[in-house]
Amino acid sequence: MLEKIESTQNKQVKEWKKLLSRKGRKKQKKYIIEGVHLVEEARRYGASIDTLLIREDKVDDYKELVTDSTLLISKEVAHTLTDAITDQGILAIVDIREKKDAVELDKPILLVDEVQDPGNIGTLIRSADAAGFGAVILGKGSADLYNPKTIRSTQGSHFHLSVIQDELEEWVERLKMAGHPVYGTALDERAVSHRTVSPQDSFGLIVGNEGSGVRPNLLSQTTKNLYIPIKGKAESLNVAVAGSILMFALYP
Amino acid sequence: MLEKIESTQNKQVKEWKKLLSRKGRKKQKKYIIEGVHLVEEARRYGASIDTLLIREDKVDDYKELVTDSTLLISKEVAHTLTDAITDQGILAIVDIREKKDAVELDKPILLVDEVQDPGNIGTLIRSADAAGFGAVILGKGSADLYNPKTIRSTQGSHFHLSVIQDELEEWVERLKMAGHPVYGTALDERAVSHRTVSPQDSFGLIVGNEGSGVRPNLLSQTTKNLYIPIKGKAESLNVAVAGSILMFALYP
Repeated sequence: MLEKIESTQNKQVKEWKKLLSRKGRKKQKKYIIEGVHLVEEARRYGASIDTLLIREDKVDDYKELVTDSTLLISKEVAHTLTDAITDQGILAIVDIREKKDAVELDKPILLVDEVQDPGNIGTLIRSADAAGFGAVILGKGSADLYNPKTIRSTQGSHFHLSVIQDELEEWVERLKMAGHPVYGTALDERAVSHRTVSPQDSFGLIVGNEGSGVRPNLLSQTTKNLYIPIKGKAESLNVAVAGSILMFALYP
Repeated sequence: MLEKIESTQNKQVKEWKKLLSRKGRKKQKKYIIEGVHLVEEARRYGASIDTLLIREDKVDDYKELVTDSTLLISKEVAHTLTDAITDQGILAIVDIREKKDAVELDKPILLVDEVQDPGNIGTLIRSADAAGFGAVILGKGSADLYNPKTIRSTQGSHFHLSVIQDELEEWVERLKMAGHPVYGTALDERAVSHRTVSPQDSFGLIVGNEGSGVRPNLLSQTTKNLYIPIKGKAESLNVAVAGSILMFALYP
C-alpha cells in the first residue's frame, strides 16, 4: 500500500509548495518537475528524484513508474504544487545538483545574459541540447532554471547537458584561456554578419536580454560580435530564435 | 478636450471587451492591440485604427499620438480591455482586413498547420518578417492571429507582411501551380535533411503542431519533406525555433 497525502495543510506539502519560489528552491536545493515526460527523462538521465508524487486517480496510468517510496496525493495537493492551469497528475521533487567541474570546453557553450522570460531560457536549453552544445551557462540576471515554466520549456533537455547558473565573465575568461573564441550578439556597428564566421568545434556564444541585448561590458570582452542579417521590416528576432539560428549555423 | 470613458459598464467598453474572444473578433471584425510599439507600427504601416484609447494618467507620455478622436479611459477600463497582467496604458481597436489577393508568390511563404500556442504563432510571424518572407498563411486549426498573446509576440510584424487565415491545402495547390516547390517538415523517414536543399527565391514551407507535427495529408502533397539534423538528446525543437532555422537557411 502506498502512503497517501490528502491535505494541503500537510507539513511536507507546505515545504514542497515553497519550491514554487526561487527562494524556497535555493534554501531546500530541490525543485519540482511535472508531467510524465519530464519524470521519465529524469529517471533515464540519472537525476536524483527525492520523491515521486502521483495523483490518486491517475495511479493506474503511471503504474510502471511507481516504486515503494512513491506517494499518492489528492487532487487538492496536486493542484497546490503546480503553477500550471491544469496539473498533469504526476510530479516529482528533484535534487538540484550543478556540476561546474563537469563542463568540458571542447564542445560549444551557450552563455545566457539577463534573459528574463523563463520560456525563452527553456527553449534556448532545448535548442542547445539539439544542436549538440556541451553546456549552457545562465548569468546572474537570467530567469531561474528551476522555475516551473523554464523546466516545462526545456522538455527535459536540462537533464541531457550541463546547465549552470554562474558569473558569465568568468566563463568568457575560461574559454579565452583555453584558446576558444567567444562570440557576442549585437545589432549595431560593433557586430559582423554571422555568415562571415566559419563553423567550428569549440567556442562560446553569448545571447542577451530581450530588450537591451548583451551587456556592453560582456560585448567588450568577446572575440567578435555577430548579428543575423534581417531582410524584412522586423527590428529583431526573439532571443530564443536568434540563439538557436546561431547555434545551428556555427555548429552544424 | 478629449472625451473620457470612466465606467467598465459603458456600452462601448462592453462591446470592445468582447474582442478578447475569438468569437467577438469574428463578429465585429476588429481586434485590440496594446502598447506604444504596436500602436506606432499600426500607424506607420497603414493599419486601419478604429479608436485609440489612452489611460487618463498616461496622456502626457503619449501626447504625440493623440488625435481629436482619441478617447481617454480610466484605469478600470484599461484593465478590463487587456488580457495581460499589467496594461500598458495605451491600446487601439483595429479593423481586421485580410487581403488574400495581395499575396505575391514570388517570395517564400510560410504555411502554419495547427500550431496551438499563440506565442509560437506570433514568433513565427516575427521571424518570417525578419527572414524576408512574403506571407504567412495560418491554417484553420492554428491559434488565432488576433489573440492578444499572438499579437504581442509578433512585435508588430503582422503589419509588415501579409498574414492570412485560410485553408492550407489551397495554398499548397496554388504554389505548385505556379511552379514553386513546397517543403513540409517531418521527423521520420519521409524527410531529408534541410541541408540537402539549396537556398531559393520562391517556395512554400509548412510547419506543424507542437505535438503531432504537420498533418499526414499535407505531408503527402509536398514536393519534399525536411528535417533539421539533431546532434544531442533532444527529441525535437520548439516549432517557432525550427521554422525560423529553416526560413533563414532556405532563404538566406
